[in-house]
Amino acid sequence: MSGLDLVIRGARVTTAADVFVSDIGIAQGRIVALGQGLPAAAREIDAAGRVVTPGGVDAHCHLDQPMAPPVRMADDFDTGTRAAACGGTTTVIPFAAQVKGQSLRAAVADYHQRAEGKAHVDYAFHLIVSDPTPQVLEHELPALIREGYTSFKIYMTYDDLKLDDGQILDVLSVARAHGAMAMIHAENADCIEWLTRRLEAAGRTAPRFHAHARPMLVEREATHRAIALAELVDVPILIVHVSGREAVEQIRWGRAHGLPIYAETCPQYLFLTAADLGIDDSYQGARCVCSPPPRDAGNQQVIWDALVDGLFTVFSSDHAPFNYDAAEGKKPGGQEVAFRHIPNGLAGIETRMPLLYSEGVLGGRLTLEKFVELTATNPAKAYGLHPRKGSIAIGSDADLVVWDEREFVLSNAMLHHAVDHTPYEGHTLRAWPGLTLARGQVVWDGTQFHPRPGQGRFLPCGMPSLRPRKP
Amino acid sequence: MSGLDLVIRGARVTTAADVFVSDIGIAQGRIVALGQGLPAAAREIDAAGRVVTPGGVDAHCHLDQPMAPPVRMADDFDTGTRAAACGGTTTVIPFAAQVKGQSLRAAVADYHQRAEGKAHVDYAFHLIVSDPTPQVLEHELPALIREGYTSFKIYMTYDDLKLDDGQILDVLSVARAHGAMAMIHAENADCIEWLTRRLEAAGRTAPRFHAHARPMLVEREATHRAIALAELVDVPILIVHVSGREAVEQIRWGRAHGLPIYAETCPQYLFLTAADLGIDDSYQGARCVCSPPPRDAGNQQVIWDALVDGLFTVFSSDHAPFNYDAAEGKKPGGQEVAFRHIPNGLAGIETRMPLLYSEGVLGGRLTLEKFVELTATNPAKAYGLHPRKGSIAIGSDADLVVWDEREFVLSNAMLHHAVDHTPYEGHTLRAWPGLTLARGQVVWDGTQFHPRPGQGRFLPCGMPSLRPRKP
Amino acid sequence: MSGLDLVIRGARVTTAADVFVSDIGIAQGRIVALGQGLPAAAREIDAAGRVVTPGGVDAHCHLDQPMAPPVRMADDFDTGTRAAACGGTTTVIPFAAQVKGQSLRAAVADYHQRAEGKAHVDYAFHLIVSDPTPQVLEHELPALIREGYTSFKIYMTYDDLKLDDGQILDVLSVARAHGAMAMIHAENADCIEWLTRRLEAAGRTAPRFHAHARPMLVEREATHRAIALAELVDVPILIVHVSGREAVEQIRWGRAHGLPIYAETCPQYLFLTAADLGIDDSYQGARCVCSPPPRDAGNQQVIWDALVDGLFTVFSSDHAPFNYDAAEGKKPGGQEVAFRHIPNGLAGIETRMPLLYSEGVLGGRLTLEKFVELTATNPAKAYGLHPRKGSIAIGSDADLVVWDEREFVLSNAMLHHAVDHTPYEGHTLRAWPGLTLARGQVVWDGTQFHPRPGQGRFLPCGMPSLRPRKP
Amino acid sequence: MSGLDLVIRGARVTTAADVFVSDIGIAQGRIVALGQGLPAAAREIDAAGRVVTPGGVDAHCHLDQPMAPPVRMADDFDTGTRAAACGGTTTVIPFAAQVKGQSLRAAVADYHQRAEGKAHVDYAFHLIVSDPTPQVLEHELPALIREGYTSFKIYMTYDDLKLDDGQILDVLSVARAHGAMAMIHAENADCIEWLTRRLEAAGRTAPRFHAHARPMLVEREATHRAIALAELVDVPILIVHVSGREAVEQIRWGRAHGLPIYAETCPQYLFLTAADLGIDDSYQGARCVCSPPPRDAGNQQVIWDALVDGLFTVFSSDHAPFNYDAAEGKKPGGQEVAFRHIPNGLAGIETRMPLLYSEGVLGGRLTLEKFVELTATNPAKAYGLHPRKGSIAIGSDADLVVWDEREFVLSNAMLHHAVDHTPYEGHTLRAWPGLTLARGQVVWDGTQFHPRPGQGRFLPCGMPSLRPRKP
Repeated sequence: MSGLDLVIRGARVTTAADVFVSDIGIAQGRIVALGQGLPAAAREIDAAGRVVTPGGVDAHCHLDQPMAPPVRMADDFDTGTRAAACGGTTTVIPFAAQVKGQSLRAAVADYHQRAEGKAHVDYAFHLIVSDPTPQVLEHELPALIREGYTSFKIYMTYDDLKLDDGQILDVLSVARAHGAMAMIHAENADCIEWLTRRLEAAGRTAPRFHAHARPMLVEREATHRAIALAELVDVPILIVHVSGREAVEQIRWGRAHGLPIYAETCPQYLFLTAADLGIDDSYQGARCVCSPPPRDAGNQQVIWDALVDGLFTVFSSDHAPFNYDAAEGKKPGGQEVAFRHIPNGLAGIETRMPLLYSEGVLGGRLTLEKFVELTATNPAKAYGLHPRKGSIAIGSDADLVVWDEREFVLSNAMLHHAVDHTPYEGHTLRAWPGLTLARGQVVWDGTQFHPRPGQGRFLPCGMPSLRPRKP
Repeated sequence: MSGLDLVIRGARVTTAADVFVSDIGIAQGRIVALGQGLPAAAREIDAAGRVVTPGGVDAHCHLDQPMAPPVRMADDFDTGTRAAACGGTTTVIPFAAQVKGQSLRAAVADYHQRAEGKAHVDYAFHLIVSDPTPQVLEHELPALIREGYTSFKIYMTYDDLKLDDGQILDVLSVARAHGAMAMIHAENADCIEWLTRRLEAAGRTAPRFHAHARPMLVEREATHRAIALAELVDVPILIVHVSGREAVEQIRWGRAHGLPIYAETCPQYLFLTAADLGIDDSYQGARCVCSPPPRDAGNQQVIWDALVDGLFTVFSSDHAPFNYDAAEGKKPGGQEVAFRHIPNGLAGIETRMPLLYSEGVLGGRLTLEKFVELTATNPAKAYGLHPRKGSIAIGSDADLVVWDEREFVLSNAMLHHAVDHTPYEGHTLRAWPGLTLARGQVVWDGTQFHPRPGQGRFLPCGMPSLRPRKP
Repeated sequence: MSGLDLVIRGARVTTAADVFVSDIGIAQGRIVALGQGLPAAAREIDAAGRVVTPGGVDAHCHLDQPMAPPVRMADDFDTGTRAAACGGTTTVIPFAAQVKGQSLRAAVADYHQRAEGKAHVDYAFHLIVSDPTPQVLEHELPALIREGYTSFKIYMTYDDLKLDDGQILDVLSVARAHGAMAMIHAENADCIEWLTRRLEAAGRTAPRFHAHARPMLVEREATHRAIALAELVDVPILIVHVSGREAVEQIRWGRAHGLPIYAETCPQYLFLTAADLGIDDSYQGARCVCSPPPRDAGNQQVIWDALVDGLFTVFSSDHAPFNYDAAEGKKPGGQEVAFRHIPNGLAGIETRMPLLYSEGVLGGRLTLEKFVELTATNPAKAYGLHPRKGSIAIGSDADLVVWDEREFVLSNAMLHHAVDHTPYEGHTLRAWPGLTLARGQVVWDGTQFHPRPGQGRFLPCGMPSLRPRKP
Repeated sequence: MSGLDLVIRGARVTTAADVFVSDIGIAQGRIVALGQGLPAAAREIDAAGRVVTPGGVDAHCHLDQPMAPPVRMADDFDTGTRAAACGGTTTVIPFAAQVKGQSLRAAVADYHQRAEGKAHVDYAFHLIVSDPTPQVLEHELPALIREGYTSFKIYMTYDDLKLDDGQILDVLSVARAHGAMAMIHAENADCIEWLTRRLEAAGRTAPRFHAHARPMLVEREATHRAIALAELVDVPILIVHVSGREAVEQIRWGRAHGLPIYAETCPQYLFLTAADLGIDDSYQGARCVCSPPPRDAGNQQVIWDALVDGLFTVFSSDHAPFNYDAAEGKKPGGQEVAFRHIPNGLAGIETRMPLLYSEGVLGGRLTLEKFVELTATNPAKAYGLHPRKGSIAIGSDADLVVWDEREFVLSNAMLHHAVDHTPYEGHTLRAWPGLTLARGQVVWDGTQFHPRPGQGRFLPCGMPSLRPRKP
């Protein structure tokens, strides 16, 4: 109890279960004491009357992920984790993506190199399995799981990443045998390709046709299929970036049948619609080209309802940072290209937490506890980082956000990513982190970013703890 | 931080969100400090390696509720709260039931008298509104809500209690206007009466026919109707004692449509089946006559799945204590009577927490966090007692359970209620409270009950906090 | 084969199963021969290339039904069956309604008197059971069923007609025991009353608020309840005048669970919307006040889909004829009254068949066979009049319609009911009967009505034949 | 009316809509007159009091289809149509299957050769598209559709036949553009292969493991996917051989969403269960190896309910005739092989109609009209053969069955196929055709088969007429 490095005074401490007023005592980067009237510490922060939440865990973001040239991600581990920190996120879990033909271990090594010495907040890696050879299935994956890479993503679309159903069953079997968590990007690749060709043949190549090539049934079908494959293997899965009603209905169906189907959604499905891809053939909408595409207002409501109801387990950014006006970004080679060639993805790592706090908590839709559960505790549990990350509890890392509640209009100039725009330009927000602590150190003070490159550490993940492991 | 009355050392502290190792510092009956290495206190308890949860909040139990003579409840606030404490429950919320013609306020006054000086743990009251006169709707209820009686129960069955749909709408409107929580007992009274008469006409009056008179569709229909009425008024409701698949499906339907429908289930729907009412005409099954009746193994699984999935918000006992072999109990007037006349209800206040801990947590179905959420945190939130009750947090009452994990066979002799049997006689349990603290005082030490009659205090309830109140 | 009274030549004969080209030979009011090149007859009609369908069976219409003074129905059996015939309907099944306190038999006798000597086409009676006394249940109903009154209607709303759930179970039990068909008007009376009072208290009494007082959930709830009651008794039921999605979903649910739930819809749910009740407080919308009220375009589509899919068994008019500008009609006592006091019902007996033919068959939604099934064959089967009515088959009554396909704009001046308006004024139709035969006699020749008062005969009904009777 | 070749007297004529008593007058192989007291004809048949239905249309059967050697089908067009006729089926629609690399037209030419001069009843061909090259999609298919091959089957499983999702979309687009009907075999190939390998690795190769390799979810997933693909293209499809609850639920889902999804089931899903594949490792169960496999009693009930409810459009045999004790049949090369290598399929062309008549009609589940609809009228409509086939109507082919209702125990010795067993050996039947007429000629007289090889003619098919073609 003595030897506190830092005390935060009078906070409205929020966990996924409770809100209570307490001081928070921090030593050696960890939370070591809760209580009112904690002893004085070297450093003190007055949080009287202010909400303090765990730092966010962004369990779905892409940083410095190699792309086919000339395309390049705008954020590396430096700028990406900088933006995360300024937006209240203190743990990121980007993807170490296997290139077909490559070993998984090589991919992991590559990613460590990309992160090393750059990250301002802690990080773990999901694996992306794109080439499940026997070597990968029988040796690499089990070994990597043991070493702390306990989750992997399966793509049902994208030519260079997608697995067929048999491969998915193989990979899910490894997840089952070793207790890892499988994330699934559920869209039907054949349907998308078929629609894309039809649209192209009709000269419909503007960004807005991206949404026409990926109607909701394409996502629904793949979601149903993913659930069936998981049911066959008898293993939990987590469906990422669920966009609207039809996929939600399939997930509800699965859960109502007792299946351990988890789901994630993202800010773009609450705050954007297909109209943001353009209502005419202007190229501006390329900024919002992501997959699945944003839907419409009715589907935004479905996503809100499902957040409130508990259908969604985690709320992530799916940050995939591409500059808009750039040859290495949304205009590959400098051209306004057909939608098929526009890099998929939105920048959102910094705005994820404030958007949900503003519209969810202050908009009267979500309790503070639910906000913490979705943005921090559950992501940490889903990927084996809890209770070290994702909570305010004795022994947890002192990753904390003190919230400022104030209204302002967002512009990209305020943000800290390396992307030349934000899809939420002009949105009114009602809150922003007034302080972010990463393992007890201030990385964002409400005005200034405090760099700590390389002090963000790699976190080997444990087993998912959302539900009891099968005995 | 100084002046601790009691420290529990090295506990595996469990909240609805987290499990972490910490000491728990208690002063003046409240939790005032969490952290390892808390200063020494007058009293210390070693809980190293043991799970410590919040004391249970039993949000559905009947104590000393007046019945039509000769029937009488076996437990009053003395024996009822004694049993609660020994089973790890430190807050009870029984019912102050309005008799038709009576004012609600009179009912409340009567109940205070019954509890006064007797209760060993804290208590609040739900109201039962059986006569929603204009006086009740416009004056008594709003005033009582302001005074801390913020939940009420609506019966769709039982002649002396049931409301018609118009009355239900009236009562729900009051709930909406004043932010109270409405609990609904959903069974179709007309169907039950019609079936009962048919069964009686056929001479089928043994206890087991109680289940025939209340098939699941009777519950399903009323559940659908309750949801529709709540939807019309646009108000949350909580469906109590949900027994199986058909009602669960209706609740899922409601929630999938964005409606704030909460639900409760009870141990009898996890651990008993209709066979416990008898497979022949023996009267023994009268012990397990409750409404809705227990169903079958398939429905038990549906209830487990729905607990895991988050469909259920609270897990209560619906303790309704009647002696079996007694003229004031299950044999009214000393007779083996037709099932229609058997007092409805099971004793379960003491076994609720250990049963769920044994089969849920230790059986690998529920996480510890989920156990706490269902048995303590959510009931406290649903009825406006959180964060004072239902959590281990700074400022919360020091209502705590230290768990013993050990296997034994349950017999009624071990229990502390005043009932002559337990429906779970002979069940194997794997855990029991090794210590129960109520506001920092030991009421159960694993072997002995430590009476503190009258120290259980009445708790005026605040507003439900399961979701944000509408702005 | 010899002795034909009439031959229709070269018709496109349509049944619920087939369309084929054939002459139709008629003798003594019955169809006695089908084939090409039938022998010459006294009278011949050239129908070459024209569709000939069975005369319609309107299984839900109200004629000369006593109302609370001053309200009076505009159509009696003279004008009502005149209008029916001119619109292609050759069998009507209005309701003999029991007044509470009255015997059913007295109601039946009264209705016979009303019909006697007036009807131009054949008729049967449904019973309306509003007072199911033991005498009615045990004696009158069974006797009347034996005498050919094999269907009855149960109201879940309207103060003077509604039964409670126990009474419904009693009546359904009689249906089950004697094989009769129960029709159910499914709306929750309490909800309607509660909403009506609220609307009235807010001064919202214009006709359009009728729809506000009967939102779809009011129908959905009662539909679910009706299905549950039928399931409990294990008896088929037919839900009348289904208006939209929510009720349709309940019926689909029932059928998917193997329950024999039949359903009816009406033209007002395909061709009108709530906007027809008024978009402001004008009283004009009183014309379209009926229950359930018309919904919106989305629900019209749901009803079309359910017609195509086979969810609906019958398509009826629910003709309830009230003058608009009349003290005995929609302005009771000569006043523009609050919506609660506006007589419920639309005139539609004459337009039912042409509307569905126009938009269903010629609009490309329904096959000719489906049109016949919905308007004639299935109603005849549902109520025990098949194969005498509802088909073109050897031995069936020669009730036939030869269709003219031509486009015109409907106005009330063209119609033959005694009502001062039609809700479909100004609608474009694409077909109208060019000839209606009732038992071989021309009652409508495309231009002129040919009265035959008193030649419309009472039809005692047999047992429903939609499905095999339980052995 | 004169010049009748044959009159059937006093029949209970049954169509999909009606049952009525009539003579049936036949000339030049067609039905030319209906009526009582038809003029005398050269030949007369007394059917007084007996049910006469249209001859069956078996829209799913395999005859003389080339298999990978040594496997060979036991029935060619001679024995296959002989068996059909003796079982009351007068039209068969087997498959002209494209071999990958082959042109569709070559396949069609080959099949004509196989049928030519052999068939005793009329036949049409479905195409099987296994290689949808641009040539096939753009030229062959459109031309063949114009020539009367208006339906084709798409396989989602079987290595030599299956299409991927993109190919399915291509083929469905052709169906949409030209109004053809697409039949889909819905099972997930990857799942089956994956499970089969696992079972083989565990030494589980006995026939009964065939069912383990194809659990219902494998069918459900593919059914959902097929519906999604059809929805995307906006085209009707017909899911063949639906086996149980999970697929039925998906089809209900599609239809409830307004999608034109048709479905077929077969006798094996009403009269067999997985237990018929063996309860131990005996090879006897190889007889019942078909795909999807028969399920269990609960699923049989689901299929019955769906037949009654109208979910199923057609009832076919999926006759796939392999001898059991034969090197060219179920023991390829003379061996008892692993289940993967057992030829898939059951013999059922002769028993289809009598089984359904016995258990459906005489068992009180189906009306006679429904029996006719499922076995004759709807298959004829689905595949463009109506009203020439599938009905008793003026101008229709005189394909008729006079039914004998009598109870007997079925044995293979009674049957006329060339297969050495029937899966229904020992089943009690309650009816069998007493007479089958094919275009007015007796092919089966209740005791004797009357061969007419080569008089069975090829029928070019018109457009499907189950619903109106889109304008």
